Amino acid sequence: MAQKPSIPKGTRDFSPTEMSRRNYIFDTIKSVFQNFGYLPIETPAMENLSTLMGKYGEEGDRLLFKILNSGDYLKNVTLGEDAAQGLNKITRSIAEKGLRYDLTVPFARYVAQHRNEITFPFKRYQVQPVWRADRPQKGRYREFFQCDVDVIGSNSLLNEVELIRMIDDIFCELKMGVVIKINNRKILSGIAEVIAVPEKLTDITTAIDKIDKIGLDKVYEELRSKGLTDETIQMLEPIINLGGDNQKKLNCLREFIGTTADGSQGITELQTVIDLLNGLDIRSEVEIDQSLARGLNYYTGAIIEVKAKKVGIGSVCGGGRYDNLTGVFGLPDVSGVGVSFGADRIYDVLNELDLFPEQVHKCTKVMLVNFGGKEAAFSLNILQQLQRSGIPAELYPDTVKMKKQMKYADQKAIRFVLLIGDEEMKTGVLTLKDMESGEQHKLEMEQLTGLLK
Amino acid sequence: MAQKPSIPKGTRDFSPTEMSRRNYIFDTIKSVFQNFGYLPIETPAMENLSTLMGKYGEEGDRLLFKILNSGDYLKNVTLGEDAAQGLNKITRSIAEKGLRYDLTVPFARYVAQHRNEITFPFKRYQVQPVWRADRPQKGRYREFFQCDVDVIGSNSLLNEVELIRMIDDIFCELKMGVVIKINNRKILSGIAEVIAVPEKLTDITTAIDKIDKIGLDKVYEELRSKGLTDETIQMLEPIINLGGDNQKKLNCLREFIGTTADGSQGITELQTVIDLLNGLDIRSEVEIDQSLARGLNYYTGAIIEVKAKKVGIGSVCGGGRYDNLTGVFGLPDVSGVGVSFGADRIYDVLNELDLFPEQVHKCTKVMLVNFGGKEAAFSLNILQQLQRSGIPAELYPDTVKMKKQMKYADQKAIRFVLLIGDEEMKTGVLTLKDMESGEQHKLEMEQLTGLLK
Repeated sequence: MAQKPSIPKGTRDFSPTEMSRRNYIFDTIKSVFQNFGYLPIETPAMENLSTLMGKYGEEGDRLLFKILNSGDYLKNVTLGEDAAQGLNKITRSIAEKGLRYDLTVPFARYVAQHRNEITFPFKRYQVQPVWRADRPQKGRYREFFQCDVDVIGSNSLLNEVELIRMIDDIFCELKMGVVIKINNRKILSGIAEVIAVPEKLTDITTAIDKIDKIGLDKVYEELRSKGLTDETIQMLEPIINLGGDNQKKLNCLREFIGTTADGSQGITELQTVIDLLNGLDIRSEVEIDQSLARGLNYYTGAIIEVKAKKVGIGSVCGGGRYDNLTGVFGLPDVSGVGVSFGADRIYDVLNELDLFPEQVHKCTKVMLVNFGGKEAAFSLNILQQLQRSGIPAELYPDTVKMKKQMKYADQKAIRFVLLIGDEEMKTGVLTLKDMESGEQHKLEMEQLTGLLK
Repeated sequence: MAQKPSIPKGTRDFSPTEMSRRNYIFDTIKSVFQNFGYLPIETPAMENLSTLMGKYGEEGDRLLFKILNSGDYLKNVTLGEDAAQGLNKITRSIAEKGLRYDLTVPFARYVAQHRNEITFPFKRYQVQPVWRADRPQKGRYREFFQCDVDVIGSNSLLNEVELIRMIDDIFCELKMGVVIKINNRKILSGIAEVIAVPEKLTDITTAIDKIDKIGLDKVYEELRSKGLTDETIQMLEPIINLGGDNQKKLNCLREFIGTTADGSQGITELQTVIDLLNGLDIRSEVEIDQSLARGLNYYTGAIIEVKAKKVGIGSVCGGGRYDNLTGVFGLPDVSGVGVSFGADRIYDVLNELDLFPEQVHKCTKVMLVNFGGKEAAFSLNILQQLQRSGIPAELYPDTVKMKKQMKYADQKAIRFVLLIGDEEMKTGVLTLKDMESGEQHKLEMEQLTGLLK
């Protein structure tokens, strides 16, 4: 019996139309990266689980796709015994590899592994799929693409400025309005210090991070549930409700946490970035957002997140500075900063706002109608000449009714159709039909190439 | 303790240099595909194991990378009981998904699944990695890229001609000398019929397929071991030792198997393809190879294989016609024909013969030296102007010794260096150093952009 064809939930096929739209996004992003001197790398889809485990928290470990060892994978498992010790013990015995969960950890592994071949500061980009065994839902897939760009081996804040400029260039190029939100992890540390519960920093940032999603009241509720006193929460209020332009926010923050070492450092860093950006032509809105923390705990300096205007879809790009990403792989004290563009969400926004340019779909320029053996053989020569002139062209492969051939051209959005019958073979004057205007032209080969080019 | 960074055996990282060379190959291949009216699709890395299993023979099933189900994957396994029934039973219970093994089966699944959205004949290409749990060795990886191009839904031999023309265009573009070998499965059937043991066809083609690797004697030995009589093997001899040009081979074949239905049909098909090719400009050698069978058993018509000249590396491209690929997915009677380019082997050949063009490495055109805070802020503006003129440029992010900055430019093969110090900031006349010639130029912004463009 025939199988009903299907694919694993949370994964997708991409049709030619979707591909050309996706490639438009990837090409735009890559060309900006290249314009700023970033170079591409690629890492394998599979990494050793020892590389991946423990890097994304407990939930991340659970969401890793694990690959069954080849051959007799049970040979080292004493089933009864190991089963008693729980699933994790068995998993470690039968699966040594996993699919990458993001591009950051493989990149850190890459840098540590290839440190002697790399010129630092290393400016690299990487556009590859990642896999997460998340529950699939609208806009969340189990296979999706990330476009990462990082500089590693430089502490300079010029890198933060550069990342924001690239974000600006990319979304301008895509004609997509965005707000670029920035914060600094040290400001969050300063806040924690001022409210005298530094050990609660993670709880505080995690709660504040949710403000857009769950609202102020629920954030307070969560903070209370994490053991913060009402007094402490009240102290946090001006920070959470900080308003005005970037300079006003910075001044406010300086007043509140300027006396703490971390806070002061964080404000100086943000001020430097804002000042440098003010001297440049940035077309997107750049906004200090003191509630910006992001889930991952490895950021140590700048935190960046980009939100689409007009479409409520979460962030379309995000990242920050991490001071010790490669330490776990034996290369300590290397600072890096980078952001990741979410191609799938960008796709959804461009789609919803109808922002894909029309000419994004690369297609055949002219189709040669197939009138039968002799004509087809003759047409092959014309076809070869057209293609070698750089004109995408095709000869309909089967000798079927004209109507069917025309329908094919129409569905493939091929604008021109070339008719080569007896008369044309005799005279060498070919008949070109413009499917848009309906006009027919009689042309010699040279004229034809000129017109189609 | 720090982990020693490593990747799973048989997988690879790609450095920026390798990436640009690989992209040169992919871009060349894709642009020829597009020039012939083929459109891209992509399918997920993971497929349901029900889609993959049983399509590649027993060995293929074994070489599939299987993905452990998420969550409590053991919940449906009665360990003792199932273990007794063997590994396969357990595997079916704990792994429902696998990594794709090639691009052909996912394509067949795609066509069956999306039949109502597709315009037939469907000309598609697909460039994606595939995974096989093969024993890694020189030139054989567990993750490698295939570049597949197929037409599905057309019986016309014009498609075979088109594939050979694309092969010719691609390898000419890459300046790589190849021999394009062709055969037809029906000729092999005809041979089996003449020697009166049609049920031995698979054994015969499998043995003949190995002639280049193991030599004539071993082929005879294998045929004998498969139960063919000496008399039968003797009958096969003229076929195995067939020589001369394509027409001579066709004539010989006609004499030997022209009376069988399959043989006659196969010869007619090959003759048609050869005749059409003779009327075109094909720059590669096209050679009928009656020993060409290829491992996979699903070919029903044309069989194509491309070998590199000068480098003994096996085939760099191969494929053929299959009459019922989508049948197993519930879409019967759709004929297709296609070939797959092995990007990794092509890379190795180009590398060995030193055929990568020099300009393949896209890189930064000019680096701005960083002389400190004030100069860097000024340089940022110049940088922005250069980049917006389409000139890939970067500002060295850290204020370190000139020597270190120049070394960076040198290692990244950046040809021009721009020096912006006090004097340059005052006058607006910038100093450009050509690292190749050692010359220095004093230029205003407009001149600079003009020169670098």
